[in-house]
Amino acid sequence: MDEPSPAGAVPEGDALHMARAIRLAALGRGTTSPNPVVGCVVVDASGAHAGEGFHAYAGGPHAEVVALSEAGERARGGTAYVTLEPCDHTGRTGPCSQALLEAGVARVVIAVLDPNPKAAGGMGRLRAHGVRVDSGLMAEEAERGNAEWLTFVRLGRPHVTWKFAATLDGRSAAQDGTSQWITSPEARADVHRLRAESDAIVAGIGTVLADDPRLTARPEDGPAHRFDGRPSAWLDARPGTELGDRPGDWPDDRLGDRLGDRQGPRQGVRRRPPLRVVVDSEARTPPGARVLSAEAPTLIAIADDAKTELQAPVLRLPRAHPKGLDLHALLAELARREIVSVFVEGGPALAGSFMREGLVDRVVAYLAPALLGSGAAALGPAGVRTIADTHRLVFEDVTPIGTDLRITARPASEEH
Amino acid sequence: MDEPSPAGAVPEGDALHMARAIRLAALGRGTTSPNPVVGCVVVDASGAHAGEGFHAYAGGPHAEVVALSEAGERARGGTAYVTLEPCDHTGRTGPCSQALLEAGVARVVIAVLDPNPKAAGGMGRLRAHGVRVDSGLMAEEAERGNAEWLTFVRLGRPHVTWKFAATLDGRSAAQDGTSQWITSPEARADVHRLRAESDAIVAGIGTVLADDPRLTARPEDGPAHRFDGRPSAWLDARPGTELGDRPGDWPDDRLGDRLGDRQGPRQGVRRRPPLRVVVDSEARTPPGARVLSAEAPTLIAIADDAKTELQAPVLRLPRAHPKGLDLHALLAELARREIVSVFVEGGPALAGSFMREGLVDRVVAYLAPALLGSGAAALGPAGVRTIADTHRLVFEDVTPIGTDLRITARPASEEH
Repeated sequence: MDEPSPAGAVPEGDALHMARAIRLAALGRGTTSPNPVVGCVVVDASGAHAGEGFHAYAGGPHAEVVALSEAGERARGGTAYVTLEPCDHTGRTGPCSQALLEAGVARVVIAVLDPNPKAAGGMGRLRAHGVRVDSGLMAEEAERGNAEWLTFVRLGRPHVTWKFAATLDGRSAAQDGTSQWITSPEARADVHRLRAESDAIVAGIGTVLADDPRLTARPEDGPAHRFDGRPSAWLDARPGTELGDRPGDWPDDRLGDRLGDRQGPRQGVRRRPPLRVVVDSEARTPPGARVLSAEAPTLIAIADDAKTELQAPVLRLPRAHPKGLDLHALLAELARREIVSVFVEGGPALAGSFMREGLVDRVVAYLAPALLGSGAAALGPAGVRTIADTHRLVFEDVTPIGTDLRITARPASEEH
Repeated sequence: MDEPSPAGAVPEGDALHMARAIRLAALGRGTTSPNPVVGCVVVDASGAHAGEGFHAYAGGPHAEVVALSEAGERARGGTAYVTLEPCDHTGRTGPCSQALLEAGVARVVIAVLDPNPKAAGGMGRLRAHGVRVDSGLMAEEAERGNAEWLTFVRLGRPHVTWKFAATLDGRSAAQDGTSQWITSPEARADVHRLRAESDAIVAGIGTVLADDPRLTARPEDGPAHRFDGRPSAWLDARPGTELGDRPGDWPDDRLGDRLGDRQGPRQGVRRRPPLRVVVDSEARTPPGARVLSAEAPTLIAIADDAKTELQAPVLRLPRAHPKGLDLHALLAELARREIVSVFVEGGPALAGSFMREGLVDRVVAYLAPALLGSGAAALGPAGVRTIADTHRLVFEDVTPIGTDLRITARPASEEH
């Protein structure tokens, strides 16, 4: 990739263009599921910026199509930078590989190859038609932005984020059970933002009985979710109504600001609220629990031999040993429902079970500047007896949120 | 402070000069006790840098004297920036107020006034002799650098830092008691650096029985402490042998690098090793415990009615209720011995007692990227029953150390 392309694109600019494509892709977070997020930048034959786009919502135009449309004739002989291998199948939209060929681009640079057998093949078709294709540029960054979807495709189960809020000494409640509020309003708002980006929010029955949470996503900077009350609506295509306008003049030196301004389009895209899931082996969810409200769909996961008169949708699952439900089966059922990302919120016992089963792909910890010294720990038994068996993580990010710290980590084992 | 001084100094540069004085002061950390750290910058009548210095070790020259000596005749009509009010008493050295008068400075800018009645009065004497004195510039930053000494003088007890190492979920050992090593080698080296900056290292008998620690400071970047074996040597003046050379050319734009280079002088200053203190109400410290080794002095704090045949120095203290020792009495006894700073290392029970008694001035947490889900918590019962009583902190700093995070916090109550 260090030789100039025949068409005169500027390979030295490759990283710059791909970095922008990755940032564009991120604008789709929370509204593309069950599709991946994708960003695309098109430069003309001289290497000048000609068009860009991102996949904004499932059922909407793909990033390449948006970018090519903006570039128009300037795409001919130019280069397209795409965060994910262009699709080669006709789904809700035509194959992007075909669109790129028709636009006449001379070169395509791909960050991550598509692991989805249904969609892969775009690179092959492009090459077969004489387009130069380079792949792997900034793959790690692009993978991170698509972690949920890539996990879903590769492992056949949803990507799982475990979030907890605790004091600096790792406690989520005081000795008498009180816990409101350990973290700041800013941290709680951030949680609602992350909830809104997830397809499902999962909690244990202990949390439901103790706190009676709504488990809804109520982000400050977006419209309320709309839900027509039919749980099966989750499986329908989510209609997007507005894509918003796209900036035309790039590159400039205020990239961050410009992208920040573009959060607008996401707010205009309406989507279903996250599915609420209660892990409740003995079917103890009270009929009046707030998690059963009409504001979002709910699924109560119960043991296959549990008796229940609940009117809510239930999902019967095998029991796990020594207790609880089979979480692998739970995730498989959610994947069947095209749930790509799951946000596990508690309590300590359920989180410990997810950790023990190796089913946590990301940990988001909100640590408050406080010390308790007693009370419930944030994480319950997680299958670790001795220090050598500890669940090793890698810290990915630390950000101050209000008076708290948000620490993001992923399992170290994923590096192997 | 916004009008030009009569002598033509440049008040706009005040913050710059004081910031450098504060950074100079920090070079004395760990070797000035029981004295404060102090930095001084002297500019001539035109506002140009003329001299600078810091207090490097107890018994050594004061910062003002070093800076005035470097400035020489250029100090006349100039301004001296001092992080702490110049002393007005004759101790091991003559009063700095007198030295400033003799040097003929026209103005003195002070960050923090001296709360020590023995030393205060410098500002008054200077003003009485017609020197313009401004105080309070960058007081917060200067206070932070002198937190240990200011606590010692204001409260009549040592400043207490509680350090813990834990997983992200706040555990310091696995279920079977194993704990080596939760944190990285870099974090452990950082702990030795902080130990070396402290006058005393305190641990509970539980930690001594479980881990048999040496409790010595073994910093990687400094010489080993030398100790002649006499516990009372702690109270002697610590002889400094080398001050190191001082840079002459300042200001420049590589301040950070230059100051970093100057860590050298500290390494040349020899000091006593930190006093090791075991909180051991029932006098259970085994005669062969490593904490009793000859490499550093040790004090075993036991209950006044405990029986012991220990050959080590013991300190008899009143019992606390419901158990343990009176930690206020412990700190008072340490203060009597001119222990300015105490580094509490564990375990959870002792740390909880210090927290409950409101005796922790700084918390340093090393969080490892790991989750345990069971095992000993880093902090034991700390007198908190309900969430409203939680010990609130303020995060001051987060720094990656190796693979870990070092989080520094102080009690929020100190803000009141």
